[in-house]
Amino acid sequence: MDRMGRLRLRFSDLGADAFLVSHLPNVRYLCGFSGSAGILLVEGQKSTLFTDSRYTFQAAEEVSGAGVRIAKKGVLRAAADTLRAHRRRYRVAFSAAHVSVAEKQALETIAGSGVRWLNDRNAVEGLRALKDREELRAIRDAAILISNVFRKVVPSVKPGVAELDLAAAIEYGIKRGGGSGPSFETIVASGPRSAWAHARPTSKLLRKSELVVFDQGAIIRGYCSDMTRTVFVGQAPGRVRNLYNAVLDAQQAAKRAIRPGVTAGDVDKAARGALRARKLDRYFTHSTGHGLGLEVHEMPRLGRGDETVLREGMVLTVEPGVYLEGLGGIRIEDDVVVTATGCSDLTTAPRDFLEL
Amino acid sequence: MDRMGRLRLRFSDLGADAFLVSHLPNVRYLCGFSGSAGILLVEGQKSTLFTDSRYTFQAAEEVSGAGVRIAKKGVLRAAADTLRAHRRRYRVAFSAAHVSVAEKQALETIAGSGVRWLNDRNAVEGLRALKDREELRAIRDAAILISNVFRKVVPSVKPGVAELDLAAAIEYGIKRGGGSGPSFETIVASGPRSAWAHARPTSKLLRKSELVVFDQGAIIRGYCSDMTRTVFVGQAPGRVRNLYNAVLDAQQAAKRAIRPGVTAGDVDKAARGALRARKLDRYFTHSTGHGLGLEVHEMPRLGRGDETVLREGMVLTVEPGVYLEGLGGIRIEDDVVVTATGCSDLTTAPRDFLEL
Repeated sequence: MDRMGRLRLRFSDLGADAFLVSHLPNVRYLCGFSGSAGILLVEGQKSTLFTDSRYTFQAAEEVSGAGVRIAKKGVLRAAADTLRAHRRRYRVAFSAAHVSVAEKQALETIAGSGVRWLNDRNAVEGLRALKDREELRAIRDAAILISNVFRKVVPSVKPGVAELDLAAAIEYGIKRGGGSGPSFETIVASGPRSAWAHARPTSKLLRKSELVVFDQGAIIRGYCSDMTRTVFVGQAPGRVRNLYNAVLDAQQAAKRAIRPGVTAGDVDKAARGALRARKLDRYFTHSTGHGLGLEVHEMPRLGRGDETVLREGMVLTVEPGVYLEGLGGIRIEDDVVVTATGCSDLTTAPRDFLEL
Repeated sequence: MDRMGRLRLRFSDLGADAFLVSHLPNVRYLCGFSGSAGILLVEGQKSTLFTDSRYTFQAAEEVSGAGVRIAKKGVLRAAADTLRAHRRRYRVAFSAAHVSVAEKQALETIAGSGVRWLNDRNAVEGLRALKDREELRAIRDAAILISNVFRKVVPSVKPGVAELDLAAAIEYGIKRGGGSGPSFETIVASGPRSAWAHARPTSKLLRKSELVVFDQGAIIRGYCSDMTRTVFVGQAPGRVRNLYNAVLDAQQAAKRAIRPGVTAGDVDKAARGALRARKLDRYFTHSTGHGLGLEVHEMPRLGRGDETVLREGMVLTVEPGVYLEGLGGIRIEDDVVVTATGCSDLTTAPRDFLEL
């Protein structure tokens, strides 16, 4: 059954006659359209993609399983106009997380009182969490690509090189290697800045005896990879090496905890417990990982107490880290797929501590 | 007066006691914080930035004019918790365009009935539309950078080169040249694909006798540039050269129409009129331009009938284009600043038709 068919299976338990899909990764997942303006209306018997005139040709080429309508005055208005034809009690599910208050007001005003709006309870995101073979191939390709790009950049890591130059080399490598681009803005953060978990690269030059965090990902055929490696410029003191090994142990503990049937919170607990055993858990200030696919952050979230049950075919990042003010940060992140009995690495770059 | 002070001047006509600012470019504009999780609460006497533990160090370094609070369970919840202290009729303005239906529900539930929520009527976006000297310098630097990067890439434009390779070279050039990255995913679209106004670059190789559209921008100190150039691989037939000149004429007509006091719609009309005189207006399928700053699309929009009045200090793109199925597309885009008497180019790359 195709993806729109699987979504229609959810209609009855949600009490919906139709789905108004406005979040672009969901639109792309369901009908293939990758443009930046699109709303997909999935009804019982047919589906319609509303886009604008910039995308006339692109939609004709990309869309499958849906008719295409070119909206003159905005895609939202066009979709709502279509719904106005329904005189009474047409139940339309929408994503409360992805529709703004202003958009909802416009939808209600234009579609009129014949439409009842329902929360879609993340139905499309739920479908997206389980990857099919083609999706797994794309994510694996993206994970291999970023692993190879990082390996090629490692020899350039030395004192005097700017963070920005390394980030530029990584992003150039992604495109040269067949990726359509980075899956987020590449992070290269050195010295004390490496303690900023989401630092943008700057013109700061690498210095001897600094930690450098590289967090990077590629997009291939629409699908993302996401990988972090931490290296040391020069020979690392014993304390830093111990911290690195503690983070690596925490990552391995989390991977060992992953299998169908456990909760996302169980995985987070495994990573946190490994760091607690070394009294480092208070330096681990974010969650252990997240789902990965058409978006770089998807369901599920591997956070404290999260009760989402893992299932075969989910793709997850596993990325514990510790951040010490002054000293810097250490994070190690891989992408894995949940298998029938555990998980399997998609990321191929080695995890040894590199002293460069 | 600082930016938060200017926002407070709007409190009385909006009937607001406070502003809850959730759109990240607005947060950055007002207090300097550039992280990916932040809500700024601007009250009459004080301001508070809510962020999470990933950004503890970064917020301490970047934020000015506001206290910083590290949220344990999400920034939205933390901000709403603070508001709960108000027992009655505390009027909080928020952006209906940037708060989702789900977020609004959470805000209302947590903050309780003591808070009345008001539409902020784009007050921050309104302030942002007028650039100060420091902002203009950043945008000018970003416009010069992308002009130089494009000029350096031109010699590589020849048959057999992949769109992706050219896009990669542009993005590498941006970072090497001191930009923090591209302001959007670089577009390189050749042959019939150049008629897709927003095509992502592919591994397609350039061929002789094709149009190639380059649409690209850089970010410097948080501010964006946005520039399009169209070139021809080989010697162009007379028809193509005529189309190019028509688009260039339309762009010049639009620039001549820009000055304080005219409406955004007047500028669009000037571009459209120039194309209509050559019976080409039906191939011009988007609006003439848009504001530019911390975001690559800001207020105002130079669209048909738009009644926003232009003012000195606004920064705009001017980008008419024509798209003919089969033949391809031609678009020419510059960034300009509205001056006391007209407008002045920020983009420095030449606009001559390049036959390569």
